[in-house]
Amino acid sequence: MNKTPRRGPLQGGMMDVPMLVSEIIAYAARYHGDTEVVGRRVDHSIERSNWAGIHKRAARLANALIAHGYDENARIATLTWNTLDHLVMFYGVLGLGIPLHTLNPRLTPDDLAYMADLVEDDICFFDAPNAELAAQLAKATDAIRCYVFLGEAIPAEAQNLPGIMTIGDFLGDAGDTIDWPRFEEDRAATICFTSGTTGRPKGVVYSHRSITLCSMNMSSADMYAHSLPGEAETVLPIAAMFHSNAWMMPFTAPLNGQKLVLPGRRLDAEAVVDLILAEDVTMAGGVPTIWLDIVSELEKRGIESTSLRTALVAGTLLPLSTAEAMRKHGIVPRQTWGMTEVPGAARASPPRGAISLDPDQQMELALNRQGRVAMHAQLRVVDEDGVRLPEDGQSRGMLQVRGPMVCGRYLGEEGAPAEWLDTGDIAVIYPDSTVAIVDRAKDAIKSGGEWIASPVLEQAAMQHPGVREAAAIGIPDPRWQERPMLVCVGEPGVDRPDDETLKASMLEHVAKWWLPDRIAWVETLPHTPTGKLDKVALRGLMGVTQP
Amino acid sequence: MNKTPRRGPLQGGMMDVPMLVSEIIAYAARYHGDTEVVGRRVDHSIERSNWAGIHKRAARLANALIAHGYDENARIATLTWNTLDHLVMFYGVLGLGIPLHTLNPRLTPDDLAYMADLVEDDICFFDAPNAELAAQLAKATDAIRCYVFLGEAIPAEAQNLPGIMTIGDFLGDAGDTIDWPRFEEDRAATICFTSGTTGRPKGVVYSHRSITLCSMNMSSADMYAHSLPGEAETVLPIAAMFHSNAWMMPFTAPLNGQKLVLPGRRLDAEAVVDLILAEDVTMAGGVPTIWLDIVSELEKRGIESTSLRTALVAGTLLPLSTAEAMRKHGIVPRQTWGMTEVPGAARASPPRGAISLDPDQQMELALNRQGRVAMHAQLRVVDEDGVRLPEDGQSRGMLQVRGPMVCGRYLGEEGAPAEWLDTGDIAVIYPDSTVAIVDRAKDAIKSGGEWIASPVLEQAAMQHPGVREAAAIGIPDPRWQERPMLVCVGEPGVDRPDDETLKASMLEHVAKWWLPDRIAWVETLPHTPTGKLDKVALRGLMGVTQP
Repeated sequence: MNKTPRRGPLQGGMMDVPMLVSEIIAYAARYHGDTEVVGRRVDHSIERSNWAGIHKRAARLANALIAHGYDENARIATLTWNTLDHLVMFYGVLGLGIPLHTLNPRLTPDDLAYMADLVEDDICFFDAPNAELAAQLAKATDAIRCYVFLGEAIPAEAQNLPGIMTIGDFLGDAGDTIDWPRFEEDRAATICFTSGTTGRPKGVVYSHRSITLCSMNMSSADMYAHSLPGEAETVLPIAAMFHSNAWMMPFTAPLNGQKLVLPGRRLDAEAVVDLILAEDVTMAGGVPTIWLDIVSELEKRGIESTSLRTALVAGTLLPLSTAEAMRKHGIVPRQTWGMTEVPGAARASPPRGAISLDPDQQMELALNRQGRVAMHAQLRVVDEDGVRLPEDGQSRGMLQVRGPMVCGRYLGEEGAPAEWLDTGDIAVIYPDSTVAIVDRAKDAIKSGGEWIASPVLEQAAMQHPGVREAAAIGIPDPRWQERPMLVCVGEPGVDRPDDETLKASMLEHVAKWWLPDRIAWVETLPHTPTGKLDKVALRGLMGVTQP
Repeated sequence: MNKTPRRGPLQGGMMDVPMLVSEIIAYAARYHGDTEVVGRRVDHSIERSNWAGIHKRAARLANALIAHGYDENARIATLTWNTLDHLVMFYGVLGLGIPLHTLNPRLTPDDLAYMADLVEDDICFFDAPNAELAAQLAKATDAIRCYVFLGEAIPAEAQNLPGIMTIGDFLGDAGDTIDWPRFEEDRAATICFTSGTTGRPKGVVYSHRSITLCSMNMSSADMYAHSLPGEAETVLPIAAMFHSNAWMMPFTAPLNGQKLVLPGRRLDAEAVVDLILAEDVTMAGGVPTIWLDIVSELEKRGIESTSLRTALVAGTLLPLSTAEAMRKHGIVPRQTWGMTEVPGAARASPPRGAISLDPDQQMELALNRQGRVAMHAQLRVVDEDGVRLPEDGQSRGMLQVRGPMVCGRYLGEEGAPAEWLDTGDIAVIYPDSTVAIVDRAKDAIKSGGEWIASPVLEQAAMQHPGVREAAAIGIPDPRWQERPMLVCVGEPGVDRPDDETLKASMLEHVAKWWLPDRIAWVETLPHTPTGKLDKVALRGLMGVTQP
């Protein structure tokens, strides 16, 4: 029955050229060489360069690494913030095929040592504000045999670190031109650890292939590259480079010839607004809480509008009130979705059909979805038995992802990569390719066999003028398994509503059985370092045990 | 000196998911299922479907191929035009990992047999207008052991073809759902032969990887996906599917959720304008001559403007007069560059700085460049000794290209893939990443050691109102090696200028030493099937031997 002669499948005749991160910086240096790259130093002063300059500095670092004997078998760690030095490290290290492990300075020395041991970091580059932390790290791990200080005078607390030297001494007289080497595109690139709410943090090892594909996907018309040409955009990540590579903007900006602005270690609204004004930023990306703070800062300064047109928003649901405040300042919020294990899986464009709606309707629709599924990211929702649910805009289930930009195996894990990644999110997928993240699975409240989405409940509470912020957690209930409890922060200068008034106002937005059984008021709510509500800490504060 | 422990390089931890063409159609079917796909049948009637429908038909074809015993070792040929049937063949065949060889019905049976033998085609799908050609092909090759007629009643001339059957019989009761198989992304996808002006045509074997990367590159904000979301665009390739896969639009349209319109076998201006009007086409791609014809057709019908906003232009230089006429009809021309061996190497965005110019200046600048270099395409110009020339907007040289979307080895060639592909073009690369194609190397006129760009000379002549079309060729010269000769077609109803008048008017645009030594007038100029001036034929007509 076989109609085919006995020969093998035909192979394509295209060139065998790997997708390497060095191509991105070489492309930017060649064709967008004089496009500015601006960053805050760790002392908060401003440093200016351009893509040609960053490429030269990366080449010099790479030549110095080679001169010091580091080859493709090395592993290099950084303990620093969103600076040009850090950007140079990204390209200088990755260009040689060496993985770059971006350590998070907000973690404990013990956690950092655990990660450095797991990666087997050989050398660590650190900055002045992290000198004390580097010294503590050196006591906790023997893996790192050389510490390089990103500054001129080694601080006292770092003077006894193994192999300590300044970056100037490390660079020596290394030249600033290089032919980047060629290697397999599956080679490790950056390594980011997930925050790890339970157990030890886990290492996500991006590859040159995944970073390139992710950056290309994010450079689509409905994501980071929505103006043409790239020179029309100045982009600012309000996310640390040790968090999913600052939303990949250090890669997408050069790919699109955009001006990049890095906020140093000041991710607060005051400093961010300063940068937006000084550098004419047009697009920035950050979590909802920072956007709320930015709008407050603009109001405080009496600024109506700035160069900023587009806000990429991810992390958690953007409250409608924040979105409206942003729009008053000329900022269009565009929600997307991603996680350390899955960068670039969603585009930020509005749902299909939105194009024919008026701006208000368009925004309401957009706010209820966290972007559209992008090519190379297969998303599905499954029930608790792993059975696939329909993508009908109704069925809520555990969100799973698959694709070449998705983590298949955490660092140190053995065996074949996973076929599907469990995101830990409860989501709904719509037939038009948009996704609505209902809740984190561990934060969702299951009452009488049905999910109550805590962000929706929180948003309903925040519609009341007396509520500035709200958090919903599940409390054990003998009959319903769990019932919602609401913890609120009052709006300054506005009367606090009583329970019945607040619940009555929430009824306009949610079903009656979703209304909280208990309401508590606090001065502030705990947040994770990435600006998400920290429900684990909140449960602790409230003395609630997880069911 | 080596600071690195004896261990191997670290591999990335991302999922091992290949880039396959089946992902594109599956994505479109799932998320843009009801977006229309419209095509002319070969009898010129209109057929309507959508991406979900195309996916079902592709699945059904794939199931039928499996039932007939064709596996990944098969090679499948088509002899048909830009129809929905052909689109279905693209996805049904490629989805199984079988290469699809798109035969060009404009070639001779002898050439087609040569290609079928080289590919070792097992089966050929053909349509009614090509029945006679299929019969001639069957006489010239034994490779193809089965012919399938894309229609209901087998035409008389095809009734004795080997294994002849109708597509209906071939499909039988095959089901229309499928789980597309997984295989290596380097596997052959479509096979297109270059026109081959000298010697036999050469086969370019695209891979699943190259088609995917190319489609992603072309889906950037400054190329095919410049509106957001995709539903805002309706795209029409005015190029045959056997020519570089109709400029890749059969892949980029589903990737971006765009409506696709296929012109059947009617690539003439009258039929194209009919489709633009009936289907609200917003973006189309074609060579300059078809754009000239489209503008004439719009003028003939007294139509000021249509839904068409963007014209992708490639192949040869767009004359300024054509560009101006297009703009009067609301069509913005955007030039790009590519060839069968190098699809998607250039973006169609205007040069940097264009954004701050007025529309007229912007267009003039854009017309002098054939797009910007895209990621994954390394371009360079070299002199006759292969020495790299600066990318300074001045240095003219032979254009070479490299990248994962570039042909490294023609079908049947042995040995390692080429490191750089010689494009056969003379070009200038600018520091801002834009490229100006000066001339085909074989058409450029070398006078006194300097290049004279024939398209520039032709455009200078066409600025005179009495010249409708012009072609410049080199004639042997004892002193200067070559001197230009100009062959003109007069504008109907306008007096023909004498030589001195024409040369005087050309002096406004070119240097004196570029002026032609001879000027001849003809009724029509010969063109290649892709609409380019056929200089080989012209030299024959003029009795000029190539130096």
